[in-house]
Amino acid sequence: MTTTTPQARKLVYRFDEGNASMVDLLGGKGSNLCEMARLGLPIPPGFVITTEACLDYFARGQKFSPELWESIQEYVHQLEESMGRGFGSTINPLLVSVRSGAKISMPGMMDTILNLGINDELVNGLATLMSDPRPAYDAYRRFLQIYADVVIEVEHDTFEEILADHKEQAGVELDYELDAKQLRGVITDFKAAIRQAAGAEVPTDPWEQLRAAVEAVFRSWNNPRAVFYRDLHGLPHDLGTAVTIMGMVFGNLGPNSGTGVLFTRNPSTGQKEVYGEFLSNAQGEDVVAGVRTPNPISSLADLLPEAHRQLMGLAQQLENHYHDVQDVEFTIENDRLFILQTRSARRTSLAVVKTATDMATEGLISREEALLRVDPEEVVQLLVSQFKEDMDSDKARSTFLAQGSGASPGAATGRVYFDATRAVAVADQGIPVILVRPETKPDDIHGIAASAGVLTSRGGLTSHAAVVTRGLGKSCIVACEEVRVDLEQRFFVADGRTVFEGQDISIDGTTGNVYFGAYETVRPNLEQLTEARDLLEWADQARKLGIMANADTPTDAAQAIAMGAEGIGLCRTEHMFLDPQRLPSVRQMLLNAEAAEEWRREHRELVEDPLSAPEMPDNVRDFYEALARVRQLQTTDFTGILRVMGHRPVIIRLLDAPLHEFLPSYETLLAEVAGQRANRTIPRSELQEKEEFLRLVDSHREANPMLGHRGCRLGLSFPAIYEMQVEAIITASAHLIKEGIEAHPEIMIPLTVHREEMRRMRQGLTQVAARVQERLEVAVPYKFGTMIETPRAAITAGEIALESEFFSFGTNDLTQMVYGFSRDDAEGKFLRFYINEGILPADPFSTIDAKGVGFLIRMAVDAGRQVRPDLEIGICGEHGGDPASIAFCHEAGLDYVSCSPYRVPVARLAAAQVALGSKEG
Amino acid sequence: MTTTTPQARKLVYRFDEGNASMVDLLGGKGSNLCEMARLGLPIPPGFVITTEACLDYFARGQKFSPELWESIQEYVHQLEESMGRGFGSTINPLLVSVRSGAKISMPGMMDTILNLGINDELVNGLATLMSDPRPAYDAYRRFLQIYADVVIEVEHDTFEEILADHKEQAGVELDYELDAKQLRGVITDFKAAIRQAAGAEVPTDPWEQLRAAVEAVFRSWNNPRAVFYRDLHGLPHDLGTAVTIMGMVFGNLGPNSGTGVLFTRNPSTGQKEVYGEFLSNAQGEDVVAGVRTPNPISSLADLLPEAHRQLMGLAQQLENHYHDVQDVEFTIENDRLFILQTRSARRTSLAVVKTATDMATEGLISREEALLRVDPEEVVQLLVSQFKEDMDSDKARSTFLAQGSGASPGAATGRVYFDATRAVAVADQGIPVILVRPETKPDDIHGIAASAGVLTSRGGLTSHAAVVTRGLGKSCIVACEEVRVDLEQRFFVADGRTVFEGQDISIDGTTGNVYFGAYETVRPNLEQLTEARDLLEWADQARKLGIMANADTPTDAAQAIAMGAEGIGLCRTEHMFLDPQRLPSVRQMLLNAEAAEEWRREHRELVEDPLSAPEMPDNVRDFYEALARVRQLQTTDFTGILRVMGHRPVIIRLLDAPLHEFLPSYETLLAEVAGQRANRTIPRSELQEKEEFLRLVDSHREANPMLGHRGCRLGLSFPAIYEMQVEAIITASAHLIKEGIEAHPEIMIPLTVHREEMRRMRQGLTQVAARVQERLEVAVPYKFGTMIETPRAAITAGEIALESEFFSFGTNDLTQMVYGFSRDDAEGKFLRFYINEGILPADPFSTIDAKGVGFLIRMAVDAGRQVRPDLEIGICGEHGGDPASIAFCHEAGLDYVSCSPYRVPVARLAAAQVALGSKEG
Repeated sequence: MTTTTPQARKLVYRFDEGNASMVDLLGGKGSNLCEMARLGLPIPPGFVITTEACLDYFARGQKFSPELWESIQEYVHQLEESMGRGFGSTINPLLVSVRSGAKISMPGMMDTILNLGINDELVNGLATLMSDPRPAYDAYRRFLQIYADVVIEVEHDTFEEILADHKEQAGVELDYELDAKQLRGVITDFKAAIRQAAGAEVPTDPWEQLRAAVEAVFRSWNNPRAVFYRDLHGLPHDLGTAVTIMGMVFGNLGPNSGTGVLFTRNPSTGQKEVYGEFLSNAQGEDVVAGVRTPNPISSLADLLPEAHRQLMGLAQQLENHYHDVQDVEFTIENDRLFILQTRSARRTSLAVVKTATDMATEGLISREEALLRVDPEEVVQLLVSQFKEDMDSDKARSTFLAQGSGASPGAATGRVYFDATRAVAVADQGIPVILVRPETKPDDIHGIAASAGVLTSRGGLTSHAAVVTRGLGKSCIVACEEVRVDLEQRFFVADGRTVFEGQDISIDGTTGNVYFGAYETVRPNLEQLTEARDLLEWADQARKLGIMANADTPTDAAQAIAMGAEGIGLCRTEHMFLDPQRLPSVRQMLLNAEAAEEWRREHRELVEDPLSAPEMPDNVRDFYEALARVRQLQTTDFTGILRVMGHRPVIIRLLDAPLHEFLPSYETLLAEVAGQRANRTIPRSELQEKEEFLRLVDSHREANPMLGHRGCRLGLSFPAIYEMQVEAIITASAHLIKEGIEAHPEIMIPLTVHREEMRRMRQGLTQVAARVQERLEVAVPYKFGTMIETPRAAITAGEIALESEFFSFGTNDLTQMVYGFSRDDAEGKFLRFYINEGILPADPFSTIDAKGVGFLIRMAVDAGRQVRPDLEIGICGEHGGDPASIAFCHEAGLDYVSCSPYRVPVARLAAAQVALGSKEG
Repeated sequence: MTTTTPQARKLVYRFDEGNASMVDLLGGKGSNLCEMARLGLPIPPGFVITTEACLDYFARGQKFSPELWESIQEYVHQLEESMGRGFGSTINPLLVSVRSGAKISMPGMMDTILNLGINDELVNGLATLMSDPRPAYDAYRRFLQIYADVVIEVEHDTFEEILADHKEQAGVELDYELDAKQLRGVITDFKAAIRQAAGAEVPTDPWEQLRAAVEAVFRSWNNPRAVFYRDLHGLPHDLGTAVTIMGMVFGNLGPNSGTGVLFTRNPSTGQKEVYGEFLSNAQGEDVVAGVRTPNPISSLADLLPEAHRQLMGLAQQLENHYHDVQDVEFTIENDRLFILQTRSARRTSLAVVKTATDMATEGLISREEALLRVDPEEVVQLLVSQFKEDMDSDKARSTFLAQGSGASPGAATGRVYFDATRAVAVADQGIPVILVRPETKPDDIHGIAASAGVLTSRGGLTSHAAVVTRGLGKSCIVACEEVRVDLEQRFFVADGRTVFEGQDISIDGTTGNVYFGAYETVRPNLEQLTEARDLLEWADQARKLGIMANADTPTDAAQAIAMGAEGIGLCRTEHMFLDPQRLPSVRQMLLNAEAAEEWRREHRELVEDPLSAPEMPDNVRDFYEALARVRQLQTTDFTGILRVMGHRPVIIRLLDAPLHEFLPSYETLLAEVAGQRANRTIPRSELQEKEEFLRLVDSHREANPMLGHRGCRLGLSFPAIYEMQVEAIITASAHLIKEGIEAHPEIMIPLTVHREEMRRMRQGLTQVAARVQERLEVAVPYKFGTMIETPRAAITAGEIALESEFFSFGTNDLTQMVYGFSRDDAEGKFLRFYINEGILPADPFSTIDAKGVGFLIRMAVDAGRQVRPDLEIGICGEHGGDPASIAFCHEAGLDYVSCSPYRVPVARLAAAQVALGSKEG
């Protein structure tokens, strides 16, 4: 906070002295009122006290500067003149509203005082002016209530109780049914209550009222709920609020008066139709309070046709002027229309997209403006399932069980099952299932695929469950630690309620909320989304970044194309290994890989066709037989995906996962063996076999599997596996090319740390590819490259580029290593705490940490391109679907981003926005 | 390999044309012969064919250039002249030796041919010349044998068999007992054998012999054993070998002839005394072959006093000239002394240190030279236990069980025990114990401390066992995967042998070898090591880097000072927590930390004395009571260490380990509970309690603990723990200062990733420190800093330095994260494979990876010093004791390195060496 020099600064602006661009100084509300004044629209006269005056007030230890008070007095006198009324005049009293208005709207967070400038004496003048004592006493009653609440800080309920007593005595139900006399009784009791509660009186001097009100509004900038709101939304605390003082106009003077709110287009559907509500003979407060049901805005056409006609014109004028849908408050005082406020309208995702697209089509805004106006996340919201019911309702709230991290958006409902096998069995009967687990593992994949949604008590936003469900476009909540799962007894406990297997729950993957019971969900019809399609096509024209998708199956690949992906940036091969029908072959291959590799080192001459070797140990034969079966399956896998993608590139990552991911859980086996040992029901030989298997699984366990024997470390230890995969890829491609279908596979090596790894891989695998091409007599246009996902790979990217035609940043792992955060552990244990406490500015797994991880990325891009100017560089981590990270990728000079198919639309739009110059993506 | 331009190059040097500096071109042997010629020493005349000629030979596809052969012929003619004999002369034949000699000595790896220039005819001339046919025929026989072996490559055993047959026929036992006639028979049979085996004859033309011999020596540069040797020692393959051709002199011409080897000082003890062996009437080969027992060199004084006198003078001259202990070969031919070779002598570690120190004291070399001459590892060898027995003996070899990675040097012997508790119990009876485990955990610490050595089947060189044993100066082998431990049945299997609990084994932590049975060990007496102390004091004067030690107890601290440490660079507090007597309090504290922190957030006003709070949940009270007990213990711990260290700095790292390290093993509990469930012998309520505890331990498990909830993440989640530690540190210091003892604690925060972590820590902990100082009315001169052990901390070091007075690089973790290598997993699974295969040039956990990890260190040093020029920067990872890494630290501008107390002498010397300009450290 800097101390201002008040002598030099203008602290107060009459509405006709400012404009919309002065939002920093005059706040949103104030600057828009100035703008309307500038346009000559019918607004009540008034003025704005600047945000600088507010900051100066705090800088002086909550004191006005003399200059400020002088200015306010002067502008009130100008207001008296233009309204033709006197502030404190007993005959013709001027009442004003005092409203807060910061640069960024914080709805309901700060204070507003209406009807200021009234007292016991002046109320009579007002009654005369209004030709009716009731609205005058009502105004006085409201003023006392608000002033006492905001300025004196008297407990708010006190007044509600007094009002309730009086209504009971009068035998009426609604506030406005009290007559002037009864209201006078209310006023007397209000004043007594204030005296009793605070030992104070509401000042009768209007100037004193004004001064205290302005101070109260200033102070409300720092009230606890406003501070909390700013914390919650990451807004700065040093902006201060402006204060708008405006002459009061009254909508409650009879049938020719009223008040209302309109949207220049339908905020729910985006339809081009004025939409709003009107309440005859009422003040704005009454609309908000909801005590009377307002009528549609069209009713005004019948009641006050002239005002209606004028209002429609003004609405159009405002929208044309602001180039955006407006949310307008207005009051009609004795046939005279006043606009009290205008601002950009909050809309549903559908309306955001539709209005932006429509306005661009209408020529009201440019396509670029339309693109920049839509938050990319809105597009995702259009595509996911939603609950039909309002989940803020009391009914829904009463079924709330827990909140976790929303890991994959959308609503889902189904019966709870705790293991993949049962989930599949139930889902096969057509019953929707929610899979609930402490965490998911790769061999749960068929269960996840069969379920409507997944809920895990552990894991983070890049945990297995999260990544897989996002890829599948299924709802998922992770890190929901309040849910305590008992796998053995098959139930979970949350919020004191026990939910058994087979009972219904509903989950919202957007908010992270879990509810007990079934709630109907709807998925928007894609055909409704013409506007989104148009907008995304414009985005494609504007963006520089390529957009690829992460996809592992032909179905995913087709989905990726439907979502607008230009290729596959990450095709993971481990998921292909985990199909339960394949797993026996896969295990047979992996468990014998070490023995086979030892044998092969001694029989190098047999490399091309080991199965033809005359003598071979059994386990080596097992390995090669399993390898041949898996090769056949992989060839089918790759043929399917490459066929769908055709001319588009498909980047296939060779096996990355550590071997133990393909084996049963050590803990489960251990408990089983321990149990069997103890109760001695099974034969000794069978137990020994189990113990042997337990030891085998144990030998593949790792202390930190994330940093263990995986990726190209496996590929180098057991070359036959990668060779098999490359053979499958090239064979699949060659057969497609023979059919006349293009194929553009790119072979990607995971987890590189040193150039030498790449050199050896390239040497070995290129030979395999050459052999297949020669045998099938087809040239396959493939590329060979690597992931950059270890800090060392990034640091030595210049060397690694000598062996790579492309780089793909694996920012999940890179972030884990740069921070030393195991995502699965961090999320529940400390990462959320770090973010909530502001220790980290953002979740580095959601948005690329530009300073740390980003430093390495930029460094690697520079070094890689220096060595190989045509190096193809992209990103395939979860960040590929995050707008802020996409902006980073654009600026770092990447060629493309790759993300889940369901995030492709987000990425297309975000890439366009950053290309159009919005740093925010 | 570059093609040479032979016209322009001199390919052959007469001994008097070269000198010792021409080692690249003439090889070690050749250049030393030239040097001796230059000095006028009595060497047989000869010449050297250059390494360039050798490379040229390979470049031409194994062909001589015409120029080379011409030069050789020319120099042979010069040799004939100076020897006064003729090459191929029947009357006065010149015989020569043809020896390999590369730049770097590869003993026994390449070929040598003696007695070349002989045939059926010339042997008679030689017999006349020697006045005895026996040595002549013996020379011929030897020539045929060597030539056939080296040039024609006839199976070596053939000749041994023929010789054996002839000795049997003659009724003699030793080769030299065969007379001339019998030798002629041998020769006939040799020639027949060669014809039969190779279909070839040994050429009779001496020139043809010579040409073929030179080619064979050239080719021996690339023979398999030479290539293997270079691979093993990391030597380059493109140097080539020189070839030395020298006139033969004969030590076997009678009692006035002989041959021997001497060392100018004792190569075993380093004593300044000529040490060597002499064999009368023999050729050099006979000494090496060991068929006759040589006499001590002193015997020569009686036999040939003049030659002895001359030899002693020459030995002194050579040592003075080379400024190093020489290993000299000589031959006496009929009273005439010839030096055949001189080179620096291989010595024991003790002799290396003693001779270097003595020579500097004598003024023969400077202190700097003495410092540069001793490999720092030699100093460690002086300080560790060794087996008394020669472990290369057949007996020792027959007890060999397995080889793992030598993790902490020294020999140890003891009874095998498989758990810490039993190990302690047995050790308490004074019986030496070797603790054998799959891996060790922090709560094995008391078992490790009680054992003579530790053997683990898993884990790497920075695993728990490795780090702890190095700290304790105990022998340790890790990653010994051949040892299969059955913990339950209490035995292990290795090399097919089963070793049960209580049986003796012996381990060598230097070589990684494990032996069955007990072997006596000796630890060198420190008092013998005056020379090492002198040398290290000179090192202290020369070095720029400070040397600190890692020490966790007063005993360690005293040891550190004894070893010459200038302070403690890393005092780990977790080991203090793991004492079995303390563990209950520690667990009570840790398990209730979360509840206590929640409570504290709601009762901030009670922060100073929470136990005074009137109402508190039981678990919160448990926490604070345990915390108070631990605070008391920690205060005692720190008082002990700070008292020992006095004016020296003590860098104390606050709690770093993840909580689960203080809890029992989940797997053990799981198996126990599963067993108890199955056999239903324990009451339901007890089982439930166990199950509850199992769940609790489970909730603290992490997928990748290395990247989990530890370090300052714990410190921030549960601030009371770090506050307790700081309170203990400052309290301990204050009390010492009151006693008049200096205390310089430095508080170190582990695992920082973001400046904000440090900012908050500093804010909170500085307040605690201030409170204690105020209460005790003592100013404590403490510092506040952080480890840099995550890539992100290194990348953002400039920001972090704003909050830190010192940096300490934790290169173990940093390396793990930069590479994505979990050390414990990597070592056994793929890291050794990577290094053996040459995928990685070195083990990055042994020597800092200058390109990857080093990049981040240099970056952090620069950024940190830019922000804070007086930033104190050191390293406390395991690399702190590695000479190459110490050289890196010197060059990166660090202030100090910190290592295990037993590595301190290494570090002192290595730091001196790099300061003296040796890049090799």
